[in-house]
Amino acid sequence: MGTVGKALDLLDLFSRAEPQLGLSQLARASGVNKATCHRLMSELESRGLVEQVGPAREYRLGSAVLRLAALREAAVPTRDAAMPVLRRLAETTGETAHLSQLVAGRLQTLAFAYSSRPGVKVMMEDADFLPFHATASGAAVLAQLADPEPLIAVAPDQNALRTRIANCRDNGWAETVSTFEKDVHGLAVPLFDAFGQCTGALAVAAAAPRMTPGLHAAITAELTCAGAEITGLWGGVIPDALARLWRAAPSKDPDR
Amino acid sequence: MGTVGKALDLLDLFSRAEPQLGLSQLARASGVNKATCHRLMSELESRGLVEQVGPAREYRLGSAVLRLAALREAAVPTRDAAMPVLRRLAETTGETAHLSQLVAGRLQTLAFAYSSRPGVKVMMEDADFLPFHATASGAAVLAQLADPEPLIAVAPDQNALRTRIANCRDNGWAETVSTFEKDVHGLAVPLFDAFGQCTGALAVAAAAPRMTPGLHAAITAELTCAGAEITGLWGGVIPDALARLWRAAPSKDPDR
Repeated sequence: MGTVGKALDLLDLFSRAEPQLGLSQLARASGVNKATCHRLMSELESRGLVEQVGPAREYRLGSAVLRLAALREAAVPTRDAAMPVLRRLAETTGETAHLSQLVAGRLQTLAFAYSSRPGVKVMMEDADFLPFHATASGAAVLAQLADPEPLIAVAPDQNALRTRIANCRDNGWAETVSTFEKDVHGLAVPLFDAFGQCTGALAVAAAAPRMTPGLHAAITAELTCAGAEITGLWGGVIPDALARLWRAAPSKDPDR
Repeated sequence: MGTVGKALDLLDLFSRAEPQLGLSQLARASGVNKATCHRLMSELESRGLVEQVGPAREYRLGSAVLRLAALREAAVPTRDAAMPVLRRLAETTGETAHLSQLVAGRLQTLAFAYSSRPGVKVMMEDADFLPFHATASGAAVLAQLADPEPLIAVAPDQNALRTRIANCRDNGWAETVSTFEKDVHGLAVPLFDAFGQCTGALAVAAAAPRMTPGLHAAITAELTCAGAEITGLWGGVIPDALARLWRAAPSKDPDR
C-alpha cells in the first residue's frame, strides 16, 4: 500500500460518532506507527483536509473537503451520477427502473429509465410524488425511518402497509403488486446518505403478468447491487444490518 | 514536499472550469512526471477521491469527497466554524462583529459577537433580516451580484445606494453611517462560496461618534483578513480581483 493510500485511510477514521481524533487514537486504529501517522496528518493538514483543535490538538476534517465536494457536485450533479446505474438496471432486468428522493417529507421522482427491449413496459412521469402507502419505494423508505408512524397513520390500509414494511425489514427490499397502478409489480430498495439515513429509493417497476420466480430473483439481486452503487456514488453508506442482508441474498443469476 | 502533499495538490487542479483532466494535463500542470502522476492518481482513485470517466479515461473528483464533506459539516456546522473568527474580530476592533448569509434572496443574520471592552456598543438581534439598501452588509453583497438591479430598484434612495455599491467595488469593503440605525457606523466585506459567488457578508458595527481615521483603517484591515478567513473556513474562494484589492489595502496597525 502506498503512502497516499495510508494517509487517505486516516481520513476514513473520522466518523459522525468520532469527529475528533487524537494522534494516539489514529495510530492505534490505523496500525501505522505514531511518528509516521504524525507526518501523514501534517501533510493532510498542510492542504486543509484536516485541522487541529482544542488544547489536546485533536484532529478533525478540514474545510478543504467542502471545496472539493462543491466542485464534485458541480461536475457530477446527483441525478447525473445515478443515471448510468439506472439505465443499466433497466437493461439487465428488461423492465423500468425508477429513482426517487425524499424532499421535504415527500418522495419525489428524480429519474427513470426504460429497457430497450420490445414489449409491454411500465411508463413513468417526471416530477411525480410517490404515495408512501401504495408504492414499493414508499415502503422501502418507511422501513428505514426512525418514526414512520405519522406516515403509516394516514394510509388507507394500514395493516397492508405494516406487513409490507415488516417484509422489507426482513428481506432488505420492498414489494407491491397492483397497489398504485394495476398490473404493476414494484420492487424497491432504500438509498442512504453519509450518516446512514435514508434519502430515497431505487425501484424496478415490472409488468405484473410477466413476473416469474426467476425474474423476481434477478430483479432483487440487480436492485440491491444498484442500490449500493448509487448510495456510494452519492457519498452515502448502507447501514451494517442491511448491508449484511443484501450480501446474504442470492446472487445474480445470468441464466434466468 | 511529501508524497501525500503532491497527491493532494493534484486534487487542487480540478476546478469548475476544468472538472475533468487527463493524465498529461495533470502532469503538465503539476510538474510531476507522468509515471509518478499516474501512481498518485491511482492511489487517490483507490480511495474514491477521484474517478476515471469516458473513452479518454479522464479524471474527475470522486464521490468520497461528498462523504468527507458531510462529516465535516456535521462536526463543524457553518456557524460554529465562523464563531472564533467573529469573536476575535469583535475583540481586536473593540466593536460589534456581525455575520449574515444570503438565504432565498434575503440577507439573514447568522451570528454576532460583542467586544468585551466596556462602553457603548451596537446591540444586535438574532435572526434579523438586513435590508440591502440600508446596511453595509447589504451593499457589500449587492456589489458582488451579477444583477443587483431588482434589489436596487426597490431602495428608497437609489442614488445613495448606487454610490455605496460603486465605492465598495473600488475599496473592497462597504460603508454606511447612520442609515439603518442612528449613530451606527457600519463596515462590511462580502463572503464567497467555492465558485466565488457571494453567499453573505461580514460586518463591524461601530458607535459612529467614536469613529476615527485610525479606527476606520484598523477595522477595514481586520475585516478583510477575517472575511478571507471565514470564506476559507466555509470552503469558498475570494474572486481574484477582490483578493488583489484586499492585499493592496493598508495592513493592520497595532499602534492605533
